[in-house]
Amino acid sequence: MPLLDALLEKNIRLVDYEAICNKQGERMVAFGEIAGTAGMINILSGLGLRLLALGYYTPFIHIGMAHHYRNIKGARKAIHRAGSYITRNKMHKSIGPLVFIFTGSGNVSNGAQEMIRELPHKYVSVKELPMVANYGSTNLVYCCVVSRKDHIVKKDGGKYNKLEYNQHPEHFTSLFAQKVAPYASVIINGISWPVNSPRLLTTDDAKDLLRPVNNPSLSTFQASPQLPHRLLAISDVTADPGGSIEFVKECTAIDTPFCLYDVEQNKLKYGSMQGPGVLICSINNMPTQLPLEATEFFGSLLLPYIYDILQSDINKSFEEHSFTHEVEKAVITSEGKLTKNFEIITDLRAQN
Amino acid sequence: MPLLDALLEKNIRLVDYEAICNKQGERMVAFGEIAGTAGMINILSGLGLRLLALGYYTPFIHIGMAHHYRNIKGARKAIHRAGSYITRNKMHKSIGPLVFIFTGSGNVSNGAQEMIRELPHKYVSVKELPMVANYGSTNLVYCCVVSRKDHIVKKDGGKYNKLEYNQHPEHFTSLFAQKVAPYASVIINGISWPVNSPRLLTTDDAKDLLRPVNNPSLSTFQASPQLPHRLLAISDVTADPGGSIEFVKECTAIDTPFCLYDVEQNKLKYGSMQGPGVLICSINNMPTQLPLEATEFFGSLLLPYIYDILQSDINKSFEEHSFTHEVEKAVITSEGKLTKNFEIITDLRAQN
Repeated sequence: MPLLDALLEKNIRLVDYEAICNKQGERMVAFGEIAGTAGMINILSGLGLRLLALGYYTPFIHIGMAHHYRNIKGARKAIHRAGSYITRNKMHKSIGPLVFIFTGSGNVSNGAQEMIRELPHKYVSVKELPMVANYGSTNLVYCCVVSRKDHIVKKDGGKYNKLEYNQHPEHFTSLFAQKVAPYASVIINGISWPVNSPRLLTTDDAKDLLRPVNNPSLSTFQASPQLPHRLLAISDVTADPGGSIEFVKECTAIDTPFCLYDVEQNKLKYGSMQGPGVLICSINNMPTQLPLEATEFFGSLLLPYIYDILQSDINKSFEEHSFTHEVEKAVITSEGKLTKNFEIITDLRAQN
Repeated sequence: MPLLDALLEKNIRLVDYEAICNKQGERMVAFGEIAGTAGMINILSGLGLRLLALGYYTPFIHIGMAHHYRNIKGARKAIHRAGSYITRNKMHKSIGPLVFIFTGSGNVSNGAQEMIRELPHKYVSVKELPMVANYGSTNLVYCCVVSRKDHIVKKDGGKYNKLEYNQHPEHFTSLFAQKVAPYASVIINGISWPVNSPRLLTTDDAKDLLRPVNNPSLSTFQASPQLPHRLLAISDVTADPGGSIEFVKECTAIDTPFCLYDVEQNKLKYGSMQGPGVLICSINNMPTQLPLEATEFFGSLLLPYIYDILQSDINKSFEEHSFTHEVEKAVITSEGKLTKNFEIITDLRAQN
């Protein structure tokens, strides 16, 4: 950590904008929404390539990556045009109803949903998933926002309880793999995942999920190219390797945005989009693909704290300042030391 | 060759549209122009990614791949917008003057030039290349169309002579590596390369060419990210592996469009666009990226021959027909045999 070493050595007071939190611990300055927006554009673009490699022309092939657009408006237009093709019911029937699952209802999820709403769409509940996945229409796409209460249960059989979950996530387990994932065409993952809390999908879940069952193209359309399984793509906007989706073990990048997860080999494969696997996009700097809006967005969230930050005086000790709670908690280094909240970094470094 | 076997076995008369040639041997029905168009769009898109990986934001990052646009008009607009950034002289000076080399003056070259003309540009001759590469402007791009006469000379020192070249290409050699390539930022290769004729660039040429000399970013702008060498990218629209550009040893694909040629390892590398190397795009089915125009274009070229082709009657022998010269030469199989012009296929199959 040469940057941290230099900060300590040179007595630099570092304020981590992304660590500015309110008293409830909620982050106040975050890129999440723009990451969600970019993550949605990217996965639609990848879906076009993946379906093409599987033998299907779809309008998604004409959607570029997020960075191909000067602004979100340009991407919206491209998605909207793809939508008019779907509205006219021109999608291959053998692809079946497309179901987009959004995990979480925070900034990432909202940013992603903003984009999908440019397609003809219908929101459904988790209960409706089996119905629409099997008998739904192909002239629109289905969206389902999945919250903890939809899939988290207690290991002893009890219901989800926010307070207990936050204190003891290890008491809970997730039914996402059983209740949600089997009906998903695309998953857009936008939840933060604390270690010890249940995963959405484990590597074992993937083994069940990625078997060639529940496959629309296998049932009634024998002549059509076969889809390997229903789940086609995952946009892991959280870019948290080995996190809530265990088998997404690494991040992708702007110049290598996609890989295929091959469940047989339990491996992420780069290159050709043909063959079995789930398309994964997990770029860890997605907001940079939309620099104009990311800057404006982040700037506007940061602005209320700037005057507070500006009172920082290197000739005064950290304690002598009257920073607001939000800014105080975001100071990582001061006077050549880690601040109290971040002393854990010393332990973490010692461990590695 | 199971398709050919089936054609022969089932007595199918195969007309290869792309083999329809006039008496001068010129192909009359070809995708070349659309391939050139797609090849230009693709390499501008790739150039954006490559320069980003080298540390430079350029407007090329906002140009998508050819298939991201519903039609050529959409791509033109995106390139035009990139051009307005260049016109306003906002390109990083340390990238230096950008020089685009177009080899050949046929359909491929024309299709590619159509696109580059959406950027502010100036056409220069081969003689002017050293001047513009070293002292040119950065608020436009330079284009140079290179023909055989510009770089092909006789091995014994004589000048290029079309008649002799066509009969004895082995009497000639190319000075492309000395006279043209050292000044190129991007090469768009659109020449057909008959075996035995001199290559534009050999693997040995690459060793000289890809040394960190002639590198604008090394000279006056020490603080800028360093470009590894002047030659940044090659769009090999001919998609002829190991052909006129020897080190482009394989084709790329729509889902893996780019690779980097690493001269040290003499290897094409896929994945990250960082590090040394020349960006290569050599997709062998580029016209499919622009299906609308490719279909219209190819269809309009084919139309004049359709009525002639339609007189084909499987109950009459090939010889009994009065096909025009153009169509006659394009028939590959008839009555369970290869036609005279294509009997060579039997020998080729025996060799492999």
